[in-house]
Amino acid sequence: MKEYKAQPKWKSKLHEVIYEADTPAGKLFDIFLFVLIIFSVILVMLESIKGFDEKHHATLFTLEWIITILFSLEYIARLISIKKPWKYALSFYGIIDFLSTIPLYLSYILAGSQVLLAVRAFRLLRIFRILKLVKFIGEASQLQAALKASRTKIVVFIYVVLILSVILGTLMYIVEGDEAGFTSIPRSIYWTIVTLTTVGYGDIAPQSNLGQFLATVIMILGYGIIAVPTGIVTAEFTRSKKDGVKDDEGHMVHVNTQACPNCSAEGHRDDATHCYNCGHPL
Amino acid sequence: MKEYKAQPKWKSKLHEVIYEADTPAGKLFDIFLFVLIIFSVILVMLESIKGFDEKHHATLFTLEWIITILFSLEYIARLISIKKPWKYALSFYGIIDFLSTIPLYLSYILAGSQVLLAVRAFRLLRIFRILKLVKFIGEASQLQAALKASRTKIVVFIYVVLILSVILGTLMYIVEGDEAGFTSIPRSIYWTIVTLTTVGYGDIAPQSNLGQFLATVIMILGYGIIAVPTGIVTAEFTRSKKDGVKDDEGHMVHVNTQACPNCSAEGHRDDATHCYNCGHPL
Amino acid sequence: MKEYKAQPKWKSKLHEVIYEADTPAGKLFDIFLFVLIIFSVILVMLESIKGFDEKHHATLFTLEWIITILFSLEYIARLISIKKPWKYALSFYGIIDFLSTIPLYLSYILAGSQVLLAVRAFRLLRIFRILKLVKFIGEASQLQAALKASRTKIVVFIYVVLILSVILGTLMYIVEGDEAGFTSIPRSIYWTIVTLTTVGYGDIAPQSNLGQFLATVIMILGYGIIAVPTGIVTAEFTRSKKDGVKDDEGHMVHVNTQACPNCSAEGHRDDATHCYNCGHPL
Amino acid sequence: MKEYKAQPKWKSKLHEVIYEADTPAGKLFDIFLFVLIIFSVILVMLESIKGFDEKHHATLFTLEWIITILFSLEYIARLISIKKPWKYALSFYGIIDFLSTIPLYLSYILAGSQVLLAVRAFRLLRIFRILKLVKFIGEASQLQAALKASRTKIVVFIYVVLILSVILGTLMYIVEGDEAGFTSIPRSIYWTIVTLTTVGYGDIAPQSNLGQFLATVIMILGYGIIAVPTGIVTAEFTRSKKDGVKDDEGHMVHVNTQACPNCSAEGHRDDATHCYNCGHPL
Repeated sequence: MKEYKAQPKWKSKLHEVIYEADTPAGKLFDIFLFVLIIFSVILVMLESIKGFDEKHHATLFTLEWIITILFSLEYIARLISIKKPWKYALSFYGIIDFLSTIPLYLSYILAGSQVLLAVRAFRLLRIFRILKLVKFIGEASQLQAALKASRTKIVVFIYVVLILSVILGTLMYIVEGDEAGFTSIPRSIYWTIVTLTTVGYGDIAPQSNLGQFLATVIMILGYGIIAVPTGIVTAEFTRSKKDGVKDDEGHMVHVNTQACPNCSAEGHRDDATHCYNCGHPL
Repeated sequence: MKEYKAQPKWKSKLHEVIYEADTPAGKLFDIFLFVLIIFSVILVMLESIKGFDEKHHATLFTLEWIITILFSLEYIARLISIKKPWKYALSFYGIIDFLSTIPLYLSYILAGSQVLLAVRAFRLLRIFRILKLVKFIGEASQLQAALKASRTKIVVFIYVVLILSVILGTLMYIVEGDEAGFTSIPRSIYWTIVTLTTVGYGDIAPQSNLGQFLATVIMILGYGIIAVPTGIVTAEFTRSKKDGVKDDEGHMVHVNTQACPNCSAEGHRDDATHCYNCGHPL
Repeated sequence: MKEYKAQPKWKSKLHEVIYEADTPAGKLFDIFLFVLIIFSVILVMLESIKGFDEKHHATLFTLEWIITILFSLEYIARLISIKKPWKYALSFYGIIDFLSTIPLYLSYILAGSQVLLAVRAFRLLRIFRILKLVKFIGEASQLQAALKASRTKIVVFIYVVLILSVILGTLMYIVEGDEAGFTSIPRSIYWTIVTLTTVGYGDIAPQSNLGQFLATVIMILGYGIIAVPTGIVTAEFTRSKKDGVKDDEGHMVHVNTQACPNCSAEGHRDDATHCYNCGHPL
Repeated sequence: MKEYKAQPKWKSKLHEVIYEADTPAGKLFDIFLFVLIIFSVILVMLESIKGFDEKHHATLFTLEWIITILFSLEYIARLISIKKPWKYALSFYGIIDFLSTIPLYLSYILAGSQVLLAVRAFRLLRIFRILKLVKFIGEASQLQAALKASRTKIVVFIYVVLILSVILGTLMYIVEGDEAGFTSIPRSIYWTIVTLTTVGYGDIAPQSNLGQFLATVIMILGYGIIAVPTGIVTAEFTRSKKDGVKDDEGHMVHVNTQACPNCSAEGHRDDATHCYNCGHPL
């Protein structure tokens, strides 16, 4: 067994509050954070409504600053309370947290940095940790597993659909021409995908008889094609019988929401005393 | 065994007619009620057609009063013929029945109470009782069971789709801007969901090259995404082999449409002599 | 064993040619008939194109008469060559054949009888007999069996979807009103079904914020709902393992396209000597 | 064992580079070719954008000539380095390669030969060979096998859908007439397929009450119909358990990307010493 340096007590306390949801303080922190995230997303939406923004610009701007400061504090707290800050900073959630914090700072340097505001919505994924419902995590990871298993098939499928779209789009461009809105091959490909996926906006629609006939063929094709990803995913779902994490003998194992203080790996067994990832005592 | 107070004979007779569909009188009552419900729904539709309402306003208004009075009488009869009126009044059907009755009364007090007219359509669900076809009830409860089993997965799925819609909607708002109809982030999110679900009205459609490219990505994504709920439900259907209600040893049990006179629970076994819910003799 | 009256030789010869596809003459008759049916369907289409009809009206009219006479002769031949003409006349194909023949005659008596021309397309279903490919018949009957088995579930499902459409349509009518195209409840229900089924024409689209929010909810709902029929049919397909007609021991049985001269039942085993339906010798 | 004529050394060297992806030179050749194919497809797209083509016509024309010459050289090299050139020339890839090469030559003789440019996109399918990932080939062939197994069912299904479209299209033509855009039966059939496949452009939409009611029925029908191909393909996917190529005892067999120098058959086992197709030593 390896020895680990003891952390200062306030650090381990902070880690417990921020990274775990098992203690009352940790729970409260998570719920407060989630409400703040939802609030920040709604704020971004309100700012985009012209009439509303003109009336309440000062208020919205102040609230945006408050949220940015709270997010900054949270980010710093996360960095100092963990043993390996870079591991967190480079993790999925670490990057999301960082990008959710900086748009307002950046807006003084870079125009168009508001694109990063869209990233904030990713933080809503934290709900799964906050809900502390292993069932939900189990369902989510089951969805994930099924999608992962069918990943290669879906990549092959999408690649073939794209090739097909290029071919059919080029044909429609030649058949229909400018009047019907097929002004270039890329635009025709856009129309082909709109049709194949059965979205069908109608902003571009074939006018000639030959074009409408070809469109009909593409739609019937789309019919068959839409069956393929469904078939892939369904077969995967039917195959995967596991309803959670199982041990070697197939028994269900209960996992909790505790995160390793060393490497922040999650999904430890309830009876675990060491992190399954780095061996650090929990 | 508990003792129950004997009900007056007219009460138990009324209960038989209203709550059960096994006797000729009960059958007749149910069929008459169902025709009345359909008629009331059609009446609401006709009132909404301006030209028709202007011509026949007096007739429609009289018919609406007749239906309201008949529904009121039925509701009172249901209340007095059952032992525990509050249990019925607070049940799903009890609330629906009440809300279907009151809109005309309310219209004298509250404007906009016609919203409640929409509730009437729920009463059409009674058909399953009237049809007295255990097969239909079995099929419906099978559908229900499969949907219930996949509930958590579908909630997780819809939550993730909503987060995705917020992110993609914000991106499209930044990329497209006002000219193409993406006037605010909420409206862009509306467009994103219209596209992801492959509905595609075309009232808002991307105009720029980058916007159309992003739309293409969203559509391909929607392709994969639409496969997920289908996969979930299908896997559930395939898993559930039971074609009705089974006893402990897996044998099929026949249920009838009789309702308990005490608690109005339904789906009793054909050979049942006491309510499975409250123990009242049937 | 029952005795059967011997048919005149020309009658049984005619029966063989018309009802069976095993002899060269029968095959030729079927192929000629199928070409004629396709031609008759194309003729109906051409008549509907104004510019084309104006130019070639006389030609089209003459061709229509030729086809009508040929169809009439075929119908009479079918009636006289079979032992029980009424059984044929009242069968699915018998009614289709009759309705395909009469539109031109009727057009002298009744206006609007051209509706019956649409019926002609049903005759195209004969291809399955002509192809003489038992495999195709097997596949078709497998499709049919799977759809039949899921019939009750689908009826329950469609009924519930219709109730939902009435409720949601009424809500949208109240929320949106006339300006956005929701002029009456029936029209709102039409829009709701257009949205729920993800067709999305865009001829009617919500304008208000509340209406667009409600539309979003309906679309997400439609997402879940579209999974249900797919789940039902898929589960049925997965369950049905049989790839054709099997005997009691589960062995595959080969069927041919011969039709019984007495009752015109089809799908007899290759080694059959009597009709499985009426016992008539084959 | 048959004797084979020894090929000149430069020929077998060329064959190795062009047809195989196991050696560094072969790999490099394939990657270079793939980049060239992508570039050629992008070039066709750019030529179709009017504004861009006008500005850079000379450059695009020169690049098109360079690609045509490189493709021509490759095609000739493929022909001379293989023992049976006609087998390659008449194979799927051989025809694609030829058609991708000739459009520019043809444009001097034939107008409209640019249709062949669409064929180039097919060459993108080569990626599966270049990726050298047996896993991808396995997934692709699994997709192919599932689609092949459900081919007959899908043909039957599409045929029935087409008949239904003709019938429903004719009905809608009679019901709606010219004002709503249903100007002829072929156009009505186009609309019916647009609706049945849930594409729903909205360029043609029913206006009358009866037409909208019929449209509703068609949409509900489309709901059920879209479930069928999905059900077919899913059942096929669930059935096929094999995740690659297996030997007689069900063990997985590893295949490589080497092509036979004699007949260019692919998918040889790693331990193969002779072509499984023609017996030529590898």
